[in-house]
Amino acid sequence: MEDSPLIRDWINGHKGEILGALVEFLRFPTISAQHKYWGALEEAAQWLKGQLEGLGFSVRLLGEPPVVYGYYAKAPNKPTLLLYGHYDVQPPEPLELWESPPFAPRLTTEAIYARGASDDKGQVYAHLAAWRYFIETYGELPVNLHVVLEGQEETGSESLYVVLEKHAPEWRCDAVIVSDTAFFAENIPTLTVGLRGLVYGELSVEGPARDLHSGTFGGVVENPIWALCVILAALKGPDGRVHLPDFYAAVRPVAKDERRLWRQLPANAAHYEALTGAPLSGEVGFTPLERIGIRPTIEIHGIWGGYTGEGSKTIIPTSAHAKLSLRLVPHQDPAEVWQRLEEFIHRMAPPGVKVTLRRLHTGAPAFETPTDSPYYQVAAEAVAKAFGRWPVPLREGGSIPVLTALHKALGGVPIVLIGFGLPTDAVHSPNEHFKLTQLWQGIEALIYAYQGFGKL
Amino acid sequence: MEDSPLIRDWINGHKGEILGALVEFLRFPTISAQHKYWGALEEAAQWLKGQLEGLGFSVRLLGEPPVVYGYYAKAPNKPTLLLYGHYDVQPPEPLELWESPPFAPRLTTEAIYARGASDDKGQVYAHLAAWRYFIETYGELPVNLHVVLEGQEETGSESLYVVLEKHAPEWRCDAVIVSDTAFFAENIPTLTVGLRGLVYGELSVEGPARDLHSGTFGGVVENPIWALCVILAALKGPDGRVHLPDFYAAVRPVAKDERRLWRQLPANAAHYEALTGAPLSGEVGFTPLERIGIRPTIEIHGIWGGYTGEGSKTIIPTSAHAKLSLRLVPHQDPAEVWQRLEEFIHRMAPPGVKVTLRRLHTGAPAFETPTDSPYYQVAAEAVAKAFGRWPVPLREGGSIPVLTALHKALGGVPIVLIGFGLPTDAVHSPNEHFKLTQLWQGIEALIYAYQGFGKL
Repeated sequence: MEDSPLIRDWINGHKGEILGALVEFLRFPTISAQHKYWGALEEAAQWLKGQLEGLGFSVRLLGEPPVVYGYYAKAPNKPTLLLYGHYDVQPPEPLELWESPPFAPRLTTEAIYARGASDDKGQVYAHLAAWRYFIETYGELPVNLHVVLEGQEETGSESLYVVLEKHAPEWRCDAVIVSDTAFFAENIPTLTVGLRGLVYGELSVEGPARDLHSGTFGGVVENPIWALCVILAALKGPDGRVHLPDFYAAVRPVAKDERRLWRQLPANAAHYEALTGAPLSGEVGFTPLERIGIRPTIEIHGIWGGYTGEGSKTIIPTSAHAKLSLRLVPHQDPAEVWQRLEEFIHRMAPPGVKVTLRRLHTGAPAFETPTDSPYYQVAAEAVAKAFGRWPVPLREGGSIPVLTALHKALGGVPIVLIGFGLPTDAVHSPNEHFKLTQLWQGIEALIYAYQGFGKL
Repeated sequence: MEDSPLIRDWINGHKGEILGALVEFLRFPTISAQHKYWGALEEAAQWLKGQLEGLGFSVRLLGEPPVVYGYYAKAPNKPTLLLYGHYDVQPPEPLELWESPPFAPRLTTEAIYARGASDDKGQVYAHLAAWRYFIETYGELPVNLHVVLEGQEETGSESLYVVLEKHAPEWRCDAVIVSDTAFFAENIPTLTVGLRGLVYGELSVEGPARDLHSGTFGGVVENPIWALCVILAALKGPDGRVHLPDFYAAVRPVAKDERRLWRQLPANAAHYEALTGAPLSGEVGFTPLERIGIRPTIEIHGIWGGYTGEGSKTIIPTSAHAKLSLRLVPHQDPAEVWQRLEEFIHRMAPPGVKVTLRRLHTGAPAFETPTDSPYYQVAAEAVAKAFGRWPVPLREGGSIPVLTALHKALGGVPIVLIGFGLPTDAVHSPNEHFKLTQLWQGIEALIYAYQGFGKL
């Protein structure tokens, strides 16, 4: 452990340079959900290519939008790792709530603000900074590395699935490492050992051929907005349970040892109310951590239809729409859930409207990773050393949908989720930011981790 | 009846002039719901003032936005009528569905297209054209006239209520005439004898303080969109009945003679499907005409919240909103209905969200007018003469909210609703238009009507 002061010195001496590069990275409006930004995805991929080549990687851009693939193989007889991350981001809307523009990064003494600062550009860049430490200090990396950075994580990884099909056999490795998750709280480090799966669609209800005067025709045609509300309301009960048939059939009870571990964390109502600004809610009979980590949910992300301007307008609109998703837990099958969702929606639709459900995301099953691999142990030690406290293994509610496919394509090697975000980072929300202490200590932890991996 | 050919000749000789003036009138974007258009209301009022002065009226603009008040009193010993109409219009959205801009009137051989063409500028202008006939032919009008044209009919007539309070005593008259309604169908003339009342509000549901990552927090906070859907879905049953307590307590059964009269009209499923492009729907146990004319309803006019852009975004949004209204029938009290709506909404709201209901419209009770007044009889004869068929008395589903107040303020004089719109006019909808045959025959009917009123 005698190298810690040197490592910290190196980081302190490079803060300006690291932030400068991260600001460049954050400037690309890499919104994969909106096609007009696909040019930015290409530009960011080119920028990443340059960065990786500067560190001695050989780099190729694969697929469209490009998967940035870098390879470093100058450490014979050392383990080979694969870093997975993403350079695309969530849409920044609602723009009016940002205190500074989402793609004009703003630095304060506390944090760096920009869409993608925490999810996932800041966390990806922490690895590049850690690698730079080894190159500058030793002239080489302590491990061999495949780097796979995709541009569609937020929208279903379509391009990566195609690339995986072709290239995964060339990506033989001993473990996968991912930094796209968060601590339970500042000063309470956690390592993520489970993520929920995802099924995402857009529901449309169509009624009259044109907007109708709601006086003249109110009472003789079904209102598409009301029909949409009936369907959406029926999807969940007041007890927080999803109403799709057999939805819980495959869901396993919460394991006793996890329950015990999670009780160490102050995950009470006050904790969540402070984070969300809303009173604690959710499925009856489960603790908040269980609701997030090991119970499936349904959420509506957006809804629109009819007149939404100022004042009153009296119409029966032609149509109404909603975006919705289900988060899945282990053993739930996304294809089966999608089918049940489709069936349920059609069954619940009142007569007189036309209902369609369109898939907006490839979807994915939940993901779990064991805590008994040596790679997990090295990661846990590294986090403990950099943050001063042993990390608790925790299931996160989010999804990194492609992980299951990646895991399978790479022959089932362990995947280590070593993320440095905080639940206060406002990811997917206005004013997303990455706390600078998390960035610096994160880089430190990654340096320790790569040192450790090199010794396995 | 020997003057009919002369009247038709006069109309034929003035078509260009009448359309030219109507196009000018339709160019003002008089959207009372949106404050940025209030300048256009003022301009349109000034334009109307000029038109009326040209016909020999003395004109004042009262209130803000202005009520255009014109007075013509050069027919001693003749009855005095009050024409009520409005020069404001519904918002034109969705703009992308208009085949030509809503405030750039487009003439085809069949119709004139513009927001307000039928509701209500075209119908108001038909009266000005009829008056011009008398001035040009006889140098004077056959009756005395108060003209009251308001700029807030579509949003609750706030300004007119204030003006009424002060000026109604000066507006002594024998009958009120209104052209803001429609025939049952082309070639099936009707005179409107009832209108529904209205209660209109905006419902807002607030949840978390910022948009939340729906993975990270999905399961521990209530989703405001879901809560909104639960409330809205609960407001109506699949049988088409409104679920507010005691909502139907004051509602009277449909009168037998009305039922009989209405059976003459081909108001079947095919009729409404052709008009709306949607299958017939509505309250169980009532015919379509009864559902529209004599049964109350609830409609949702717009809904919005969360992410509504392209592709997928995974958030629990901060809030969700909807615009909704109830149409009321005789004996229902708008104030009581509003209170029950407010109570119901708060009772139905799931815990964990904050719910508010904001009034967007003054509201009004339903309106009925008898068919046995001589003014109704003259109007019916005039319509029969111009359109070749005796008009059926019909209850319309729409509302002219201020009529009840007007009726009361003017001492209970009869109100005649002589409207020339068609249910295919797309009022409140994109591509609103007024059929030219309805305009020309409407002007003809109004000339007969004013001739007849002058003889009472």
